[in-house]
Amino acid sequence: MLLEAISHHKVNNGWLKRYKHKSESLNCEMTFSIFLPPNATSATPVPVLYWLSGLTCSDENFVQKAAAFETAAKLNMAIVCCDTSPRGENVADAPEYDLGQGAGFYINATNSPWSAHYHMYDYVVEELPLLIKNNFPVLDIKSIAGHSMGGHGAMIVGLKNSKQYASISAFSPICQPSQCPWGEKIFRAYLGENRETWKGYDTCELLKQHISSPPILVSQGTDDEFLEKQLKTKELKVAAKYHQSNIQIDMHDGYDHSYFFIASFIGEHLKFHANYMQQ
Amino acid sequence: MLLEAISHHKVNNGWLKRYKHKSESLNCEMTFSIFLPPNATSATPVPVLYWLSGLTCSDENFVQKAAAFETAAKLNMAIVCCDTSPRGENVADAPEYDLGQGAGFYINATNSPWSAHYHMYDYVVEELPLLIKNNFPVLDIKSIAGHSMGGHGAMIVGLKNSKQYASISAFSPICQPSQCPWGEKIFRAYLGENRETWKGYDTCELLKQHISSPPILVSQGTDDEFLEKQLKTKELKVAAKYHQSNIQIDMHDGYDHSYFFIASFIGEHLKFHANYMQQ
Repeated sequence: MLLEAISHHKVNNGWLKRYKHKSESLNCEMTFSIFLPPNATSATPVPVLYWLSGLTCSDENFVQKAAAFETAAKLNMAIVCCDTSPRGENVADAPEYDLGQGAGFYINATNSPWSAHYHMYDYVVEELPLLIKNNFPVLDIKSIAGHSMGGHGAMIVGLKNSKQYASISAFSPICQPSQCPWGEKIFRAYLGENRETWKGYDTCELLKQHISSPPILVSQGTDDEFLEKQLKTKELKVAAKYHQSNIQIDMHDGYDHSYFFIASFIGEHLKFHANYMQQ
Repeated sequence: MLLEAISHHKVNNGWLKRYKHKSESLNCEMTFSIFLPPNATSATPVPVLYWLSGLTCSDENFVQKAAAFETAAKLNMAIVCCDTSPRGENVADAPEYDLGQGAGFYINATNSPWSAHYHMYDYVVEELPLLIKNNFPVLDIKSIAGHSMGGHGAMIVGLKNSKQYASISAFSPICQPSQCPWGEKIFRAYLGENRETWKGYDTCELLKQHISSPPILVSQGTDDEFLEKQLKTKELKVAAKYHQSNIQIDMHDGYDHSYFFIASFIGEHLKFHANYMQQ
């Protein structure tokens, strides 16, 4: 697995580096960014937080807008940001912002034409961590976080692979995708009409199965325009009651769905993860 | 002077608000953003930092990429970000990124066709502060900062109006625009061939005039691709010796010209300004 360097910037005394590589699971070229704190060396590897972005985003939104690196440098934590879908001229797409490229939804598509490339679940769970481990000074210790579609992604990945992640966090996540317009549209396209198959990628359904899980932190703004119709945080609160692990759901008065909300509380999330990623 | 609200976001417990208005000095519609810290009220007005961005930027680059608001909220400081030139279909422009719209250079053009709209100096020095004072809970106390072309802008505005600003700071500023390709191109277009008129907008020339000034902080990355040819920090160091005020020029090893450099040291700049903006 070869990496091709795209760019690098010194930031907060660490390094932000961007690469492309040929993804086997997605069968296309993919781009990711990694922040390495100042003290990350092969002799002193660091834990990694994986960040999953929302609809329409790439690996660049978080690195530019989340104001995360000062705290990540202090906490001695790497952060990997991946793209939100397979990309390219040969990859199936749709004219809408919420289907196709930019809307991978962190699941494995089984329906044609999406099944040829849309295996973001495998990419995030298996291929990307292996690539990172083989090329950067990181430990096996990892956590996962995300925003909106990426908050959904972080929760399903973390719940379905509970021993692999030290902690999970989500900003404004899509909590019950099998029951909201964004999720229903994607699941119908990528997975087909059988709603039973959708449940395997639905946080509320996974929580009801009493799966043990890493600790989860969810932050949600009360003025989020998508709160009622798409995000369904109320349903997450109900589902969380079935769950034996510790889930903290924080409602933040007056905040919306934007990266300004993420920038306001990312420090708190990073400290949450650092607490569980300690060796 | 009427303001039309475009958007608002809660961030770090304060508010980021974006407006448009008809500018008299620029003779076109202009957009700006203002961050108001949580405790800014008409009963408890706050000091204001004016931020000037670089070539190709708008008011949005700083608010999205500078990671400034957590510290600004703590320091109880408003930040105003303006656009980098007049805008619109009727405003003169050029196909290049470094002339015309997005490249106002914070000067008053005297040459046609630019002189019809390109009066960014008047806008920043007079019109915008009056507009802000009349519409938001701010004090008369203000400072000014910027990046690259905006670092040049902050220094010439602060030096030419030394009693109006508590402090000046610049990231990667164009220090001697009358002697570098970016500046020569702009000055020739906006001011004409007479190089004597250029000196009134050149930081190195203004410093040599032994003007008293507010304290100045300059931060410059050593790996900035524009350092030698365009920014001329060495010449600033020479010119600073003529100057009686306190100028601190910090070179930062390995940093480049990007907003990642700004995000790394904006907290230090905000604390510098807060120190001088105290009532």
